[in-house]
Order: sequence, then C-alpha cells, then structure tokens
Amino acid sequence: MSQWKQIQQLEIRLLEHVDYLYDDNFPMDIRQGLSGWIEAQDWDIAANDESVAGVLFTNLLSQLDRVRSQEQNFLQRHNMKIIQQQLKVKYTTNPAVMARVISTCLREELRILSSACMQEQGPLERSLQN
Amino acid sequence: MSQWKQIQQLEIRLLEHVDYLYDDNFPMDIRQGLSGWIEAQDWDIAANDESVAGVLFTNLLSQLDRVRSQEQNFLQRHNMKIIQQQLKVKYTTNPAVMARVISTCLREELRILSSACMQEQGPLERSLQN
Repeated sequence: MSQWKQIQQLEIRLLEHVDYLYDDNFPMDIRQGLSGWIEAQDWDIAANDESVAGVLFTNLLSQLDRVRSQEQNFLQRHNMKIIQQQLKVKYTTNPAVMARVISTCLREELRILSSACMQEQGPLERSLQN
Repeated sequence: MSQWKQIQQLEIRLLEHVDYLYDDNFPMDIRQGLSGWIEAQDWDIAANDESVAGVLFTNLLSQLDRVRSQEQNFLQRHNMKIIQQQLKVKYTTNPAVMARVISTCLREELRILSSACMQEQGPLERSLQN
C-alpha cells in the first residue's frame, strides 16, 4: 500500500498533523494526484543537487499536464491549472527548494505513520521491538 | 437550474473564460461548494455597503464551516480549511471588496451564458429577439 493510502487511513487526530504539512508550498492536491510518482522519486538527492532538482521539477510539471488533460471535472482541472502556475512562479529558478519541501513532507508523514503504529502496539510488543 | 449548473454545461472554449474569473480572490471551490447560497445573496448591495458586506462575509464563513464539517473527503476538507484561512486574511477588514469580487464573477458568468445562448440561436431568431 502506498504511503499516501496509509496516511488517509489514520484517525482524525493524526490526520490533523498531516493537515499542517500541506499548503501553497506543496499543495495536497499534488500529493494526492501524483502520489505514486512522488513516492518513486528521490527527493533527498534532489534537495542537495540543483540539476537533479531541475529535472524532477520539469517532470513534475509534465506529470501535472498529463493528469490535467485526463481530468473530466471542471473544478479539479481549474485547480490543477492554478497550482501549476503557482509552482512555476515559486520554483522555476530554485527547484531544490521544492525538493526540500517534498522531502520534508514525506519524512514527516513517515514519522506520523510510525507514531500511529507504536500507539497500536501494546507495551509488551513495544518493549520487544526496542 | 442554478447559474453554476448552467455554466458547467458550457463548451470547453467558453469554460476557459470562466476559468479566468476564479483565483485566490474567490476560489472556485467556494463557488461550487456554496453555489445555491451564493446565488441567493445580493452581492451588489453588499459591494456598496460595508455593514451588509460584513454580515454576508460572516455568513459565508459559517456556510463554509457547515460544508467542511459534513465533508468526508480528507483532501476536500483540507482545501476548505486553507481557503477559509485565506479569506479571513484577505477580507476580514474589508468585506465589501469580497462582495465586489463575487458580484463581478456572477455578472461575468451571466455575460458568458448569454453569449453562449446567442451563438446557439440562428440569425433569424437573433434578429427577431433584437
């Protein structure tokens, strides 16, 4: 199961933490629309290498073009277009910043998922694991 | 049929004009989520009366609270929350500006709908109408 699918199965209290991760810097529409592709890229490397980040940024825009062209819903298509414009303004000249934002979001999601997992385990399982 | 429903039935070429009406100043998610309520308010009066505009702004935020509390989809709930925060920052101290934006959008939608209607009619029907 993808990380994003696991996230969506969290209880509301933990979902609120996820809520805070996403804003105009990395809209949740993108996280959801491109979840598989996003999880398959290495954002940590891109965060420290402007040229890798540039390639990933261009690919991300192409992925958004693809998703938008297939989208039947007018509102979703409109939102996708606005998000693309905002991303171009924000990251065209500094794609590594975007890579750092995405890398942080994915890492924080993992932290939230692991804390949810720890809460589900009883004290015995936890002590065995430690 | 509501104005917004008519809008969504336009051909893509005309929908692109609608696309340009909506941005952060009046997100299309609100236009869609509260379409009935929005069309039932008098935004022209509010655009010229700060106290009426203030009441409408407060009511709009309450309507958004209601819609958000009923929304099951995590992404939609998240987007609605972000939009509410943005609207509060933009319009709390000048709600008449928001009323003017909404009033303009509704009027422009009507103009687009009427141009679509004129294009559907043949030259004879048009000349009879004029």
